[in-house]
Amino acid sequence: MPYEFKTTRRVEFSDTDMAGIVHFSVFFRYFETVEHAFFRSLGFSVVMPQLDPPVGFPRVHASCDYRRPLKFEDLVELHLLVVEKKRRTLTYQIRFRRLEPGPVEEVAVGKLIVVCVQKGTDGRMHSVELPAGLAEQIEPAPTALLAGP
Amino acid sequence: MPYEFKTTRRVEFSDTDMAGIVHFSVFFRYFETVEHAFFRSLGFSVVMPQLDPPVGFPRVHASCDYRRPLKFEDLVELHLLVVEKKRRTLTYQIRFRRLEPGPVEEVAVGKLIVVCVQKGTDGRMHSVELPAGLAEQIEPAPTALLAGP
Amino acid sequence: MPYEFKTTRRVEFSDTDMAGIVHFSVFFRYFETVEHAFFRSLGFSVVMPQLDPPVGFPRVHASCDYRRPLKFEDLVELHLLVVEKKRRTLTYQIRFRRLEPGPVEEVAVGKLIVVCVQKGTDGRMHSVELPAGLAEQIEPAPTALLAGP
Amino acid sequence: MPYEFKTTRRVEFSDTDMAGIVHFSVFFRYFETVEHAFFRSLGFSVVMPQLDPPVGFPRVHASCDYRRPLKFEDLVELHLLVVEKKRRTLTYQIRFRRLEPGPVEEVAVGKLIVVCVQKGTDGRMHSVELPAGLAEQIEPAPTALLAGP
Repeated sequence: MPYEFKTTRRVEFSDTDMAGIVHFSVFFRYFETVEHAFFRSLGFSVVMPQLDPPVGFPRVHASCDYRRPLKFEDLVELHLLVVEKKRRTLTYQIRFRRLEPGPVEEVAVGKLIVVCVQKGTDGRMHSVELPAGLAEQIEPAPTALLAGP
Repeated sequence: MPYEFKTTRRVEFSDTDMAGIVHFSVFFRYFETVEHAFFRSLGFSVVMPQLDPPVGFPRVHASCDYRRPLKFEDLVELHLLVVEKKRRTLTYQIRFRRLEPGPVEEVAVGKLIVVCVQKGTDGRMHSVELPAGLAEQIEPAPTALLAGP
Repeated sequence: MPYEFKTTRRVEFSDTDMAGIVHFSVFFRYFETVEHAFFRSLGFSVVMPQLDPPVGFPRVHASCDYRRPLKFEDLVELHLLVVEKKRRTLTYQIRFRRLEPGPVEEVAVGKLIVVCVQKGTDGRMHSVELPAGLAEQIEPAPTALLAGP
Repeated sequence: MPYEFKTTRRVEFSDTDMAGIVHFSVFFRYFETVEHAFFRSLGFSVVMPQLDPPVGFPRVHASCDYRRPLKFEDLVELHLLVVEKKRRTLTYQIRFRRLEPGPVEEVAVGKLIVVCVQKGTDGRMHSVELPAGLAEQIEPAPTALLAGP
């Protein structure tokens, strides 16, 4: 069963700041790039209007450790690993590796915890179990594959 | 009746790019800063869930002429003027003046055309007349006050 | 000689706003996606530190006409056409077509004017001629290919 | 000596996403709003070109725990507390409280670690001691004031 997913992304000019590097907040937008591509690879979307009522995946925690800067036009690999699958939450590790220009280097490692929610009849969001068709397809990655702290 | 509104904004680090200046796309986010503050000053919001069905104001045109750069921590005046009020659309001019550091200079001038829409029973958006309580409060600015082309 | 370039982009969650569609300012970030890919296809970059002193391409005008909304996970074609090449400036037309989900539709058309600048010995930016190796590779698109007003 | 700083910010339309709430990456841009206002309150800026060579403050860690959503036009208090001051790094806690509409509620709490760097004669960034004039003005907040984990 899938426990990881990789995609790449080229750094855009609008991702940089006046220090000449990718702004630290932009790494969190990149988190979603790979998270959502992972969902699509499983035939799902984080936006699931076909479920009634629809479910969503708000974030309860996001963090990132920055080791090296990313620059304009760098090609970066986004590598998502499933750290934990609970009934209502998923925890991911997201690793950033610069592929171009070389040498290949790890530039950052992040963590994201999302909870599955659904709007109740009272109009408020409530946490609910992960959609079965999604949960059945995912398993946690072997611990040895996860980056150290 | 109101035909203009001013507010100020300090340039943030995340608004800059690697050229050391505010990214050109960010000026359009600043458009909204003054547009929405203008609505609030009239007791309205661009998000009007209290109307049934709710109305919204998607953009049909946006443009900006850039004369001078804006930099981090510059204090910029955002000056909105109503150019035209039609039954279903509003046209604004938005002028950017750097107040700090001096000397005061015009840095950009923009234009924004918005249309009032409502979701029909077919689930699609249709243009509708501006809410009466809003339209009654707004008039076009005297032509002499508008910046030249 | 090249007068156009196409690339595609999938709409990301962070590109959307609470109206459920791509925020109008984000289209201008997409402008750059295709502009910079066009430069790379010619062996250039908008960031040219190898020139001494480096040149840059600040924007003097940007505009966009919005016809239809873009939504999360839509696949959009970005089509850049060179409208005009002057000694110091380039004018582009940028057309947005939604490829997925179908039917294929034009969603927006934009215009971007950039000027080539170089930092002078006085520390200020001055407009300069386009780098020869770049200008020689580009020509204006046939008028018949440009979208109407 | 100062160990905290507060400012407020009104949520903008472009800060929201299609879920109708502030995108989780935007909280990190808000981090900087209060961090940089804190620096200005001390007579400093995170951009210090007056130092020779200039120093900067890249981030080595950023994290945020999200408890409640923020919505368009909410007024949010950004509360920065200095957690730790070392010779070359600063650690902040940043707390988000929604002031309007009431009731006042804590919506998120974040952490940011920055390192002071300077470009060496080899063109690379090196960590250096915090500028004396800045470091002398800051002290860690009393532990009792910091939010729990």
